[in-house]
Amino acid sequence: MSATLHRLPGHTPSLDPMIGLVARDMDHVNAVIVERMRSDIPLIPELAGHLIAGGGKRMRPMLTLAGAQLVGYAGDRHHLLAAAVEFIHTATLLHDDVVDGSDLRRGKRTANIIWGNPASVLVGDFLFSRSFELMVAGGHMRALEILSNASAVIAEGEVNQLTAARRVDLPEERYLDIIHAKTAALFAAACRIAGIVAERPDAEEVALDAYGRNLGIAFQLVDDAIDYTSDAGTMGKDAGDDFREGKMTLPVILAYARGGAEDRTFWRDAVEGRRTADADFAHAVDLVRRTRAVDDTLARARHYGQRAVEALAIFPDSAIKDAMIEAVDFAVARAY
Amino acid sequence: MSATLHRLPGHTPSLDPMIGLVARDMDHVNAVIVERMRSDIPLIPELAGHLIAGGGKRMRPMLTLAGAQLVGYAGDRHHLLAAAVEFIHTATLLHDDVVDGSDLRRGKRTANIIWGNPASVLVGDFLFSRSFELMVAGGHMRALEILSNASAVIAEGEVNQLTAARRVDLPEERYLDIIHAKTAALFAAACRIAGIVAERPDAEEVALDAYGRNLGIAFQLVDDAIDYTSDAGTMGKDAGDDFREGKMTLPVILAYARGGAEDRTFWRDAVEGRRTADADFAHAVDLVRRTRAVDDTLARARHYGQRAVEALAIFPDSAIKDAMIEAVDFAVARAY
Repeated sequence: MSATLHRLPGHTPSLDPMIGLVARDMDHVNAVIVERMRSDIPLIPELAGHLIAGGGKRMRPMLTLAGAQLVGYAGDRHHLLAAAVEFIHTATLLHDDVVDGSDLRRGKRTANIIWGNPASVLVGDFLFSRSFELMVAGGHMRALEILSNASAVIAEGEVNQLTAARRVDLPEERYLDIIHAKTAALFAAACRIAGIVAERPDAEEVALDAYGRNLGIAFQLVDDAIDYTSDAGTMGKDAGDDFREGKMTLPVILAYARGGAEDRTFWRDAVEGRRTADADFAHAVDLVRRTRAVDDTLARARHYGQRAVEALAIFPDSAIKDAMIEAVDFAVARAY
Repeated sequence: MSATLHRLPGHTPSLDPMIGLVARDMDHVNAVIVERMRSDIPLIPELAGHLIAGGGKRMRPMLTLAGAQLVGYAGDRHHLLAAAVEFIHTATLLHDDVVDGSDLRRGKRTANIIWGNPASVLVGDFLFSRSFELMVAGGHMRALEILSNASAVIAEGEVNQLTAARRVDLPEERYLDIIHAKTAALFAAACRIAGIVAERPDAEEVALDAYGRNLGIAFQLVDDAIDYTSDAGTMGKDAGDDFREGKMTLPVILAYARGGAEDRTFWRDAVEGRRTADADFAHAVDLVRRTRAVDDTLARARHYGQRAVEALAIFPDSAIKDAMIEAVDFAVARAY
């Protein structure tokens, strides 16, 4: 496959090639995850298992494994680090759902709905702590530095997002700062640590970081677009969730900027929580379509996807490189 | 001062000697704390500062500094680790107050009441992440191991406590497991890392750990007793908070075990949330007094305090050793 986002006619891009190539490593990672989820307190594996076993793609640890394969790493220290990455991600999801009051994730009821907010907060803390234990067990100080920094950046991004909520005039730049922090930082770190454990030259570490970071932004942009195009049945996410929570995402920012006075009043009312009916959401979908706000969100996603693909140029061609390129195609094609 | 908990007549035990001896080191720790609380997101230093600047004793970082002085450490790497310890503690407090729905801490309104639960959860996560960055900057893999393990133990203890809430027949042993995890583990780690950075023999590390652990248990037992003896005006904690939340603490466990059928019904109603009036709390205070449940909770605190003091026996006499012994006296004397 060439390094392009233009897919072959009739070929639907898929994560399957990547999943297949890292399958044996992922078995090890899954074993680590199961072992480290264990606790004498039954609620911990029960609640954590609900989310961890609940059909996630394990995208982030998969990227660590793919990156390691890309640079020809033959050891096994990245298994612990990949599990650590998944634990950071899971802890973040648990806390996100509490913060957002979400009731559905990946088509299942959220942990906070089933076990309550206190349990979700505390089990999130447990997973977060366990992730650091795993990093320490991984034994690589620079990997620890990268991952602990990513964790702080994520948390900072979450707070940034919280304070940006319900602000209809959020600048696009600040929105990009937020998704850089809350999504792209962990994608970048997940890829970068593969280069670190393999002790590859700095240029390869940086390239892996760039691949992950741009893929992460593309992923988040498409997620934000999907909120205005999909329905709960197909995506395991309620369409309109972001809208009803007054969350500022790029489709809203663009539609607001491009709208007339009446449209702007509608958006202001919506993000300030006065427009949460189904009819309001239908009107919002209509507005983001008419202003091409969703199309342009997806165009920006393709831009970052292209940059992710280009970051891989320094690596020799290989099956895993093709699969990593196809993963980008998959990420940006999800909304069509 | 001799290694005993029998105070000199007319001498009120105090933390002041310890505070004085570590004051210069604490200035460095405070500078680290202020610097690492910084963020471009104003809510983060604002919310974190409310708690961190809010009159806490900095007991845990103080123990790291005292321990380092006890073993003659002359470097400065423990400043970063002591700040990390305080950040772990602060993150835990923020999440605890969300979980418990508390509205008052150290005599001030809690962060969750002022800024809301979402902000408290996320800023807690930020401080937690920052604590790991500080540990990594501290550069000592074994200290990282001890502190990351302590974090996981704390979180596990918090979940254990959550599932134990409102269970009137909680065994004393499980209660001790909980306070071992949620309080004593960080006290122990805070002390132990002093021995680690100073590269002292294993026996001294273990002794520091035992000092911190036993002091932590004594501290928590006295805290739990205070809930049935103090009032908000004097302690910065609402007397009866634990009672009204149905929290199982040792005074309740002992009073329930020693009570007749009528008393047991009262306690069951109370911990299951059907007795939250002031008169109910007054009755509870009467019951814990009549069954000597508070007295015996404090007696157990003295037992652990004695063990903390004895753990210091392997260290030569010094001003800081005397101060660390007096800190134990202070901890167990608070409730009188």
